[in-house]
Amino acid sequence: MTFEATCTAPVNIAVVKYWGKRDTSLILPTNSSLSVTLSQDQLHSKTTIRASADFVSDRLWLNGIEESITSNKRLVACLRETRALRTKIEAEDASAPKLAHLNIHICSENNFPTAAGLASSASGYACLVYTLSKLFQLPLDASDLSIVARQGSGSACRSLFGGFVAWEMGERADGADSKAVQIAPETHWPDLQALICVVSDEKKGTSSTEGMQLTVKTSPLLQERIKNVVPQRMDEMIAAIKDKDFPKFAELTMRDSNQFHAVCLDTYPPIFYMNDISRAIIRIITEYNRDGIKAAYTYDAGPNAVIYAPAANMAEIYSLLSHYFPGAAFDDSLGLLNNAAAPTTLPTNFDQRVSPVFPQGSVKQILHTKADDGPRVLAADQGLLNAEGLPKRLA
Amino acid sequence: MTFEATCTAPVNIAVVKYWGKRDTSLILPTNSSLSVTLSQDQLHSKTTIRASADFVSDRLWLNGIEESITSNKRLVACLRETRALRTKIEAEDASAPKLAHLNIHICSENNFPTAAGLASSASGYACLVYTLSKLFQLPLDASDLSIVARQGSGSACRSLFGGFVAWEMGERADGADSKAVQIAPETHWPDLQALICVVSDEKKGTSSTEGMQLTVKTSPLLQERIKNVVPQRMDEMIAAIKDKDFPKFAELTMRDSNQFHAVCLDTYPPIFYMNDISRAIIRIITEYNRDGIKAAYTYDAGPNAVIYAPAANMAEIYSLLSHYFPGAAFDDSLGLLNNAAAPTTLPTNFDQRVSPVFPQGSVKQILHTKADDGPRVLAADQGLLNAEGLPKRLA
Repeated sequence: MTFEATCTAPVNIAVVKYWGKRDTSLILPTNSSLSVTLSQDQLHSKTTIRASADFVSDRLWLNGIEESITSNKRLVACLRETRALRTKIEAEDASAPKLAHLNIHICSENNFPTAAGLASSASGYACLVYTLSKLFQLPLDASDLSIVARQGSGSACRSLFGGFVAWEMGERADGADSKAVQIAPETHWPDLQALICVVSDEKKGTSSTEGMQLTVKTSPLLQERIKNVVPQRMDEMIAAIKDKDFPKFAELTMRDSNQFHAVCLDTYPPIFYMNDISRAIIRIITEYNRDGIKAAYTYDAGPNAVIYAPAANMAEIYSLLSHYFPGAAFDDSLGLLNNAAAPTTLPTNFDQRVSPVFPQGSVKQILHTKADDGPRVLAADQGLLNAEGLPKRLA
Repeated sequence: MTFEATCTAPVNIAVVKYWGKRDTSLILPTNSSLSVTLSQDQLHSKTTIRASADFVSDRLWLNGIEESITSNKRLVACLRETRALRTKIEAEDASAPKLAHLNIHICSENNFPTAAGLASSASGYACLVYTLSKLFQLPLDASDLSIVARQGSGSACRSLFGGFVAWEMGERADGADSKAVQIAPETHWPDLQALICVVSDEKKGTSSTEGMQLTVKTSPLLQERIKNVVPQRMDEMIAAIKDKDFPKFAELTMRDSNQFHAVCLDTYPPIFYMNDISRAIIRIITEYNRDGIKAAYTYDAGPNAVIYAPAANMAEIYSLLSHYFPGAAFDDSLGLLNNAAAPTTLPTNFDQRVSPVFPQGSVKQILHTKADDGPRVLAADQGLLNAEGLPKRLA
């Protein structure tokens, strides 16, 4: 008996940031957060899970390398929760195939290099839990699944939906109300696009898991953010999205990115994720917005910038970035340059002195993408495992 | 009739930072602050002021270049206040020479380049007001004078004292209780020394006058700092200084520097003063402190680091900095290298990977100094004006 499912799940980039846990084992956050789900056409995790009576143990391959399952408490939690739900189904319905007791092989890949510094744990755990739910045919909606995925990686819960997604922090000690909800689907605001700028960095930053708990422990300013800033900002952000009010959305996004990095800096010892290139991009976007907001930057726990903007501004923004950061590879999956050649001159009245021109390769890659849908189920022939249940591709 | 005074005044570097005014014309701060006065043997402003019936107008030369007095509201306020006090003396004492109505020539120089990014307005205004008080023989103590100097440049009030100096924010609307007081004289803790690292920077930062008011206007986190963080931190810092408790002094200093830059980053648009070199110095000092605090970094509104440490650690710290920042010029006025050659190896157990080695000249200069005394009166032959009342040296 063999059962198998293969799915992909998207990356999400928060516009109200998650930083701090009130419960580190259940992964319950100190504040709500909100993100935009980016298109799987550019970036995704892909996972095949097969359950078979032939398998002698649970096994896992990540990007072609076998990893231990038992030593990964978070992964174990996701497997335990979904198997328990499958066991219940099988107990209640005698006709349901008996899968819960079978060993599984999990094979997962990202279609972007981990080295790019793009959050892979969010798409990875969302894909794991979504694929498990398909394998086990769990009668759960995306919010229910988000509660499971959250225990793998907090921000993974938001990758269970497309479009604009809030992670409601919840109040309960067991985390049953700490879940993702969709604020608006990807079809609500098709004009909103994103440029991801992969920034070269000398220094590997602090892991977000360690970093956020050091902030909780040592930053006096974090409490103010949690108690007084984020609750109001969440309301304003949801309203801005519903109204498709880009200037408001952009201001809130930039302020929240700034504040996230501010509480990192207020941590002791301080945590830095942005470098001089990241800051130059902020200065360039700030100058670009001088006479009215046309773009928003945001930075996660690394130096890479994500720039949100209406589609009409994208060629101009790409041109600006190309001026200051020559030599960046451009991933044009949306056909930006084919449809409208990027201008070669800077925008009128743009004060060029806002930044020096950086050496070739300071920004390694620029990737054009957009808000898009949630996890997808793929056809059986798209699976990552071969007939023996081993990865078709090894690292 | 000619009257003249020549004085020098020191630079001070805050360990609890001033950032934000509640009254921009009287220069009343949103929080109290505390600084260490650094030795005039290395860094000072020097000012000669002459009053003469021969002068047809008030004139001012700064670093050899004539500047307008009337267009400088802050300078006008300092002159008006001190002349009013002199007028009162002359009215009450018929034997007092009549100076208040005479025109004056002011000649002021810094012995360090403005381009070095070291706060020159603090020493400059402290020196101006101190020299005026000597010229006019005002019966004011240093705290009284600090109220006048504060109206020239906020942090100038702290340069009226040597040693460890608090600027009490005060409560009154007229600023009469917003003044500097000495927490401890320079003789209290002679073991405390400082290294100033002059960092090369591509980009001129936001002026502190503009920057701090943008923070007051836009940073939600600043209010928390003002209301809840600084009052307690001031008490703890004063206790640490009185106890000569270096680890406590150092932790508070680093935390407050971090928080100042955090509220700059929480400003909209964000303000950056530290660059990748500044942050590398933080990482190096953090690693150096891993098994116990041996040094403290602090950064003002620019990328330069000031490192406070006990005298015994200075050679080791200099050696560390020289490793990561080759080619920095070293100003050894205190005889650090003569008295104890800096070690050429890194400290035991120091994790070198904390930072890359930077290119030659990334840190331009390292200057060794210490806590020292307040403004000094110089002999008449040290004056900066010639017989005609013009600068002996022009730019």
